[in-house]
Amino acid sequence: MAELPKSIRDLVEAFERLPGIGPKSATRLVFYLLNTPVAYTKDLGQMVAEIKSKVKTCKVCYNMGEDDLCGVCKSDKRKKNMICVVERVVDLLAIENVGGFVGVYHVLGGSINPLDHVGPDDLKILELISRVKKLSETEDEIEVILASNPTMEGEATALYIKKKLEDLGIENLKLTRIGSGLPIGSDLEYADSATVARAMEGRREV
Amino acid sequence: MAELPKSIRDLVEAFERLPGIGPKSATRLVFYLLNTPVAYTKDLGQMVAEIKSKVKTCKVCYNMGEDDLCGVCKSDKRKKNMICVVERVVDLLAIENVGGFVGVYHVLGGSINPLDHVGPDDLKILELISRVKKLSETEDEIEVILASNPTMEGEATALYIKKKLEDLGIENLKLTRIGSGLPIGSDLEYADSATVARAMEGRREV
Repeated sequence: MAELPKSIRDLVEAFERLPGIGPKSATRLVFYLLNTPVAYTKDLGQMVAEIKSKVKTCKVCYNMGEDDLCGVCKSDKRKKNMICVVERVVDLLAIENVGGFVGVYHVLGGSINPLDHVGPDDLKILELISRVKKLSETEDEIEVILASNPTMEGEATALYIKKKLEDLGIENLKLTRIGSGLPIGSDLEYADSATVARAMEGRREV
Repeated sequence: MAELPKSIRDLVEAFERLPGIGPKSATRLVFYLLNTPVAYTKDLGQMVAEIKSKVKTCKVCYNMGEDDLCGVCKSDKRKKNMICVVERVVDLLAIENVGGFVGVYHVLGGSINPLDHVGPDDLKILELISRVKKLSETEDEIEVILASNPTMEGEATALYIKKKLEDLGIENLKLTRIGSGLPIGSDLEYADSATVARAMEGRREV
């Protein structure tokens, strides 16, 4: 790459830092940009430069938004006493994309993972506890759906939160965990044994 | 995606216009940016916005550079009487990455392709002709290596240039075409018939 101008090499290097983009794709992106109208590169550049200052974190649920409250928390159509606890905003989006969920969310910001030095205090767990506590003063019934991922870390996080919420001693607090088992359209034959075991455990009357 | 803030949706859409980036990767990129230090997003944004104004086209060979002359044309170690004609800058880079080529280049900007309405006048062919003509006034021997791609369009382009250069009637002008055949490490068994035919045609004494 010695023959490429410095500005191109610098941009290729910057693109390479993005996830899923290696040296070849990065070069391809830069050459594509060089062949697009200048209005696009200017707009894209400005949006990238400003994105972090434009996006705010919701003060209630830690979802992303452009104001103090996110779109979900702002809506008066959502049940504020049904809180779905997720690890990340992308998980929230996955549930929103399905549609049909009428409650609100609480974004933890990850899962408890000692190997990565992520403890309960690095997540928005204390915030969840006090949110539920405060909610219990005005709401008769509260449901907290623990929707952290069905991984080792996600399960540990769900268990930890379950214990902490139970310690509050709130009456009429319903704690649920999202269902695990075989994904729809999959084959028992090809499923991994942990998933099959969980599917057997989670069997329901029909 | 209804619940994402507008600035995120806009950036996702802008990223989707890039080659090889679909809605999922675009979203992933934006979330990655939201979690990186603000210095990186600012730098990346500025570089993207400025790239088109920073990169210039070499006046001699139409390679990219930051001045009137590109790095190859500037170098006094390159033989100016050995011109490798390529379709695009990426092809030039492929040859440079191999190393060992001591001549200079001429970037056509594409290949003759009637279906895409690209005719000889849309490429830097006239510029190549006059470059070779001018060179013949000072150089005793000139070699032009036709390195357009071994596709239908690339072959047509090479043939067209060959004819035009022969029409100049320059003595000691050597015209060559890059070799085609089986790629190194490939298998005769799995090669397509056009490649095998070309490999047979291009056989050499050993």
